Amino acid sequence: MSVTPAGIGVLERLNAGEVVIGDGGFVFALEKRGYVKAGPWTPEVTVTHPEAVRQLHREFLRAGANVMQAYTFYASDDKLENRSQTLKITVTQINEAACDLAKQVAGEGDALAAAGVCQTPSYLSCKSETDVKAVFKRQLDVFVKKNVDFLIAEYFEHVEEAVWAVEVLKTSGKPVAASMCIGPEGDLHGVPAGECAVRLVKAGAQIVGVNCHFDPMTCVKAVKLMKEGVEKSGLKAHYMVQPLAYHVPDSTYLGYTELPEFPFALEPRIVTRWDVHKYTREAYKAGIRFIGGCCGFEPYHIRAVAEELAAERGIMPAGSEKHGMWGAGLEMHTKPWVRARCRREYWENLLPASGRPKCASLSTPESWGVTKGHADLLQHKEATTTQEMKHALEMQKKAKSSG
Amino acid sequence: MSVTPAGIGVLERLNAGEVVIGDGGFVFALEKRGYVKAGPWTPEVTVTHPEAVRQLHREFLRAGANVMQAYTFYASDDKLENRSQTLKITVTQINEAACDLAKQVAGEGDALAAAGVCQTPSYLSCKSETDVKAVFKRQLDVFVKKNVDFLIAEYFEHVEEAVWAVEVLKTSGKPVAASMCIGPEGDLHGVPAGECAVRLVKAGAQIVGVNCHFDPMTCVKAVKLMKEGVEKSGLKAHYMVQPLAYHVPDSTYLGYTELPEFPFALEPRIVTRWDVHKYTREAYKAGIRFIGGCCGFEPYHIRAVAEELAAERGIMPAGSEKHGMWGAGLEMHTKPWVRARCRREYWENLLPASGRPKCASLSTPESWGVTKGHADLLQHKEATTTQEMKHALEMQKKAKSSG
Amino acid sequence: MSVTPAGIGVLERLNAGEVVIGDGGFVFALEKRGYVKAGPWTPEVTVTHPEAVRQLHREFLRAGANVMQAYTFYASDDKLENRSQTLKITVTQINEAACDLAKQVAGEGDALAAAGVCQTPSYLSCKSETDVKAVFKRQLDVFVKKNVDFLIAEYFEHVEEAVWAVEVLKTSGKPVAASMCIGPEGDLHGVPAGECAVRLVKAGAQIVGVNCHFDPMTCVKAVKLMKEGVEKSGLKAHYMVQPLAYHVPDSTYLGYTELPEFPFALEPRIVTRWDVHKYTREAYKAGIRFIGGCCGFEPYHIRAVAEELAAERGIMPAGSEKHGMWGAGLEMHTKPWVRARCRREYWENLLPASGRPKCASLSTPESWGVTKGHADLLQHKEATTTQEMKHALEMQKKAKSSG
Amino acid sequence: MSVTPAGIGVLERLNAGEVVIGDGGFVFALEKRGYVKAGPWTPEVTVTHPEAVRQLHREFLRAGANVMQAYTFYASDDKLENRSQTLKITVTQINEAACDLAKQVAGEGDALAAAGVCQTPSYLSCKSETDVKAVFKRQLDVFVKKNVDFLIAEYFEHVEEAVWAVEVLKTSGKPVAASMCIGPEGDLHGVPAGECAVRLVKAGAQIVGVNCHFDPMTCVKAVKLMKEGVEKSGLKAHYMVQPLAYHVPDSTYLGYTELPEFPFALEPRIVTRWDVHKYTREAYKAGIRFIGGCCGFEPYHIRAVAEELAAERGIMPAGSEKHGMWGAGLEMHTKPWVRARCRREYWENLLPASGRPKCASLSTPESWGVTKGHADLLQHKEATTTQEMKHALEMQKKAKSSG
Repeated sequence: MSVTPAGIGVLERLNAGEVVIGDGGFVFALEKRGYVKAGPWTPEVTVTHPEAVRQLHREFLRAGANVMQAYTFYASDDKLENRSQTLKITVTQINEAACDLAKQVAGEGDALAAAGVCQTPSYLSCKSETDVKAVFKRQLDVFVKKNVDFLIAEYFEHVEEAVWAVEVLKTSGKPVAASMCIGPEGDLHGVPAGECAVRLVKAGAQIVGVNCHFDPMTCVKAVKLMKEGVEKSGLKAHYMVQPLAYHVPDSTYLGYTELPEFPFALEPRIVTRWDVHKYTREAYKAGIRFIGGCCGFEPYHIRAVAEELAAERGIMPAGSEKHGMWGAGLEMHTKPWVRARCRREYWENLLPASGRPKCASLSTPESWGVTKGHADLLQHKEATTTQEMKHALEMQKKAKSSG
Repeated sequence: MSVTPAGIGVLERLNAGEVVIGDGGFVFALEKRGYVKAGPWTPEVTVTHPEAVRQLHREFLRAGANVMQAYTFYASDDKLENRSQTLKITVTQINEAACDLAKQVAGEGDALAAAGVCQTPSYLSCKSETDVKAVFKRQLDVFVKKNVDFLIAEYFEHVEEAVWAVEVLKTSGKPVAASMCIGPEGDLHGVPAGECAVRLVKAGAQIVGVNCHFDPMTCVKAVKLMKEGVEKSGLKAHYMVQPLAYHVPDSTYLGYTELPEFPFALEPRIVTRWDVHKYTREAYKAGIRFIGGCCGFEPYHIRAVAEELAAERGIMPAGSEKHGMWGAGLEMHTKPWVRARCRREYWENLLPASGRPKCASLSTPESWGVTKGHADLLQHKEATTTQEMKHALEMQKKAKSSG
Repeated sequence: MSVTPAGIGVLERLNAGEVVIGDGGFVFALEKRGYVKAGPWTPEVTVTHPEAVRQLHREFLRAGANVMQAYTFYASDDKLENRSQTLKITVTQINEAACDLAKQVAGEGDALAAAGVCQTPSYLSCKSETDVKAVFKRQLDVFVKKNVDFLIAEYFEHVEEAVWAVEVLKTSGKPVAASMCIGPEGDLHGVPAGECAVRLVKAGAQIVGVNCHFDPMTCVKAVKLMKEGVEKSGLKAHYMVQPLAYHVPDSTYLGYTELPEFPFALEPRIVTRWDVHKYTREAYKAGIRFIGGCCGFEPYHIRAVAEELAAERGIMPAGSEKHGMWGAGLEMHTKPWVRARCRREYWENLLPASGRPKCASLSTPESWGVTKGHADLLQHKEATTTQEMKHALEMQKKAKSSG
Repeated sequence: MSVTPAGIGVLERLNAGEVVIGDGGFVFALEKRGYVKAGPWTPEVTVTHPEAVRQLHREFLRAGANVMQAYTFYASDDKLENRSQTLKITVTQINEAACDLAKQVAGEGDALAAAGVCQTPSYLSCKSETDVKAVFKRQLDVFVKKNVDFLIAEYFEHVEEAVWAVEVLKTSGKPVAASMCIGPEGDLHGVPAGECAVRLVKAGAQIVGVNCHFDPMTCVKAVKLMKEGVEKSGLKAHYMVQPLAYHVPDSTYLGYTELPEFPFALEPRIVTRWDVHKYTREAYKAGIRFIGGCCGFEPYHIRAVAEELAAERGIMPAGSEKHGMWGAGLEMHTKPWVRARCRREYWENLLPASGRPKCASLSTPESWGVTKGHADLLQHKEATTTQEMKHALEMQKKAKSSG
């Protein structure tokens, strides 16, 4: 079975039964490379250091990704206003630069350029449907002008807002994928995963799934529930999954943001390439055909997706030129005991140690139990005040003692 | 106290009491980005994908590194012959390209370009001093032609070979740093760390220290022993440390290569930026002034070195524009409980969980106890044979059962 | 509130709102003391070494237990026949001795003597209701003759067999408690916990609950479900809980027997006295009033139950003469840093380390998924044959690889 | 090789090359059974509840112990005065009762009765040699009167005090064993382990070794150093080891008392019977022939010592009637997957999980670095005052932050 030629759209590929490999996470990768600030998390780097963004796109392309997703995460008016005090770069500039970079690199290989919108401060602050949709529309105008191949509404905690996003994106006539950052327990208003999927499909999304917030196996589980929901309703859709590259079995309904290690001490939780092999197989077996990654997914993780499905797809990514399958390259290592590790059985069964004997293996999440509408979630442009911080510390202490 | 202007040499900086910040690790970073093959570990990427190497240099520069080390690791005739079967790129091309890239990016900021040699298959295979020195000389010719600022003899397990390397590098008249990949227990022939340092200084190295193989705190401990040795001998030197970015308290005298997780499952051991703060302080307190990183050190780790010493050096790296000290940027996070983490006390005391309850915290290293001269270490260009693999698996089983 | 005088029956105590404290586990305690053989687990010690059994009863009495449960576990004809090849002691002798010992020690303090039956090899081997009931009847005859205060049908995995046991015990006219070794997921035939409780109450049990197989918090959760089931049915009952003294969050529906550590490597899982304080409070808050322990519960664990409820019950156990509440006795320790630990806050928040850095924190249970009626569970008196062992090892390997 | 008949003394046994199996720990075992108060740790139970002490002796005898050590730990005038405010039982009564119980049970099997002295509050409070020796003499008078078989000076942190004890005990003419609670780093005044042993042998001890404070493997290591020291000095002695039954690799020079889990949360650190097999083999291989246990050693642990050496000694303990070697009894278990565990390979290689994913595997010891002569160690009879507690809490906080 061969891969559809470049230029064929995402729906044609999926309809033909192809696997579409997504890319990895830009936010965390570029934070580590020095171009994105944790906290605001906004993507002005597309304008200030385009070469850094381009390089990351190229690495994912080389790793086998078929989707170059323009780095437009949190690139909305209300978010930029809230988060980047001194910014002189406009939201339009950022989105345009992001689309240009994605399209450029997509053109260098077998990939499509996508662009997306995500959850807004306006929604969390209880603005009207009209207001929230206007935020999405402002980004969409750029995406249409730049003529990306398809659109993604992603990282939504509430299906209500996700549906609004899909409705806006659908006006473009382009294919629309909708991906929520929820786990098997459903959205933050208590809507079950299956029901979320049904509403998104009814709103016009052709591809539905989840991204971010939970670990690979948990995300696959959530998409399975979505698929069951859609199928029970007699609807049809394609499915996508783009999980964290972190093991977070201890996270609850708000995902990894609740874990004490978020966002600066997640290192011990990073998945290995072998974990990605298992995840990919599980996703594939579940009938998911758009398979990628979100925060934490580095190029070598995406390459592992492509390598796991090499037989099914009949193709190896360019980056595998520098990677022996299942550690095969180690047969040329200097140390004989490392040479002895050049085999699948070794890596598949290894339980890697943390090297941290004074650390536990699970944490207690800070479950504040707040969602849209709660005063603690009203968004503002000022940094945290002293009074707010006092309140937050009290809540933190309370959450801990009940953990 | 301010930082010496660009263009001033490494010895002038150290003599003036300045801190020189080294860069991080290219081998592992570029393996994850898809350009270096684990096993051979050779750097032909400097020729095939120079933009990937340049981008990584720039990220370390932005993070505050004062040294752009040309990516010449394992770029020696004997290594390339051994490891890269189909290679049509010459060792001269690789070394030249590496020097060009390092010099180019060094010129973009306050950094010096260095180039180096490291341990050779020839030495492990018991070739003569003349043969081994010829290998170093071939690389040195390029470094001299390209006129890098200083030279590094690094990643040596045996002080005998390191001394040979220093002797060759000294013929250039450039400053020479010598760094061994040993821990507090000394080199693989049993020479104590302090004695190793004395021999290297006597051979002409102006800077001595350790890199790779052990975790940050262990490396600082080894360099302390070197410093004690040098001072007891009435000699003078500067000191450098460039450790792993992995927690490996369970490794023994051959370092992390003996751990079962090497090289494809080290993720749970990756140090956080806060671990780097502690390491930097410890190194500084020990009187070490050339402080950087080796395998696993990503740009954000090097930025943490620079941020920890911001007060002493009176300067912040460019990359800190995108990083609040001690998590300060989180005061602009969407979730209130994450905002409550924008403080030093929080991150300094956090014990991060692994998210892997079915994994242990320490492993048993595979201590085969072989070193230079042992038949198992004779290097060859063929990949591992079936018979060799059988022998290796038997040794592995034996090592495990005695663990 | 004071405790009801000795001599008052279990139902009168519970009806009056009293807490009845159960005893701990005889099987595991006496295995460690050298009197019970793991594997057969039969209680011939009541005849061969009565002083060892008497001493353990006295320790539980001193710790505050209000129930001296005759050590009749697995003292049924079919079990003894199956398990103790060379036994010359009759089942009647064992049961009589057990009742005598329980009654003797109960008479030394504020305690009642109980005796019980538990699940039978006959049931697992698919014998008829008549056959199984005959086994219970044989034990009951002794209990009636010895005139114990009340009866317990405990350690049942299938509610069907538990109901049969209750029906037999009810013929005596004595109060009957029924306790299953199930978790929140219900019995091994898939009957939910609430429904199990309803059937047991309808069969005549005045007290229902769970014992063994799961850890304290999990057992409390299961009893809560039983209580909800009974209340929804408009029935009335009292509730009991006697959990393991092991942390087994990784066990699934067959409990700790599935864990690789069962029964000889459970040490790292043993609960502390402080864990028992939390469990006791949780059970009390859930409305459970018969609170004790099963396998692993030593006298000091039962004392912790009594100490946690000292305020509610207005009484301290005799054994507390040798125990300061919440570590208070440490104020007389030699070492000053240990004296500093004589306070509730210290012990309540301590997360105790295992001292085993090469061990994980959770295991993968061996879930064979077999229950009554499966050929693997047909009971026989011969020890395992070679062929059986081969089959078992294959199953074990299979279970492991799917874990 | 058969075991020497009962009645033959300890030296005769050791001189004949026999293994002498010691008993386990009374203090912690009886604390858990409800008869000893943690903090004061004094043994008035020998008078108040002799049946509890007798039962524990019998269990150790049944497990294979050849030594019934009279429970006289901390039964000295100064200790009892300090620790047991309301006590009306005299030190003579306690010591006499202890000797009677040990002798009685020793007479029931192949065992010797020993009695001992241990470190005193007088020494820690800097009393004179004369004063300290008077304390020992008072206990010795009872031991002589009761005519125990041999004497033990044990649990000494300072060799100076241990030598004084040996000198007093030697006046009786009975064999004297001397055992310190030190690790491989030597005594608390910095005297190396080998030198401690030499001084004790010179003072007249015929058997030297260590007990308590460290885990089995660490204790064996310390005794090896003692043996090396004695042999280097051209002296001769027998060697003994009676370690903790807790894994405490994280303890430093003051042993487990420094660990945060001491004494009420050590459960996760308890060694399994299989750990004891390994320890016993290691001790035997090191030439140690008096092998027993201290705090935490329960009867089943001592039985494991006897079972490991069954071939060498040609004898099995009585208690093995209820224990299949290496889990053999499980071949009669109900569940087939448990039957599959009836083999040495299974238990020997098992790495037992803690069931506590929120706990670390190692702790940071509270190393206050105080020893004899430090004001914090002056002993007094009052419980801790408020001011003292404040000081202790400050020290604790300080120790923690430097950990």
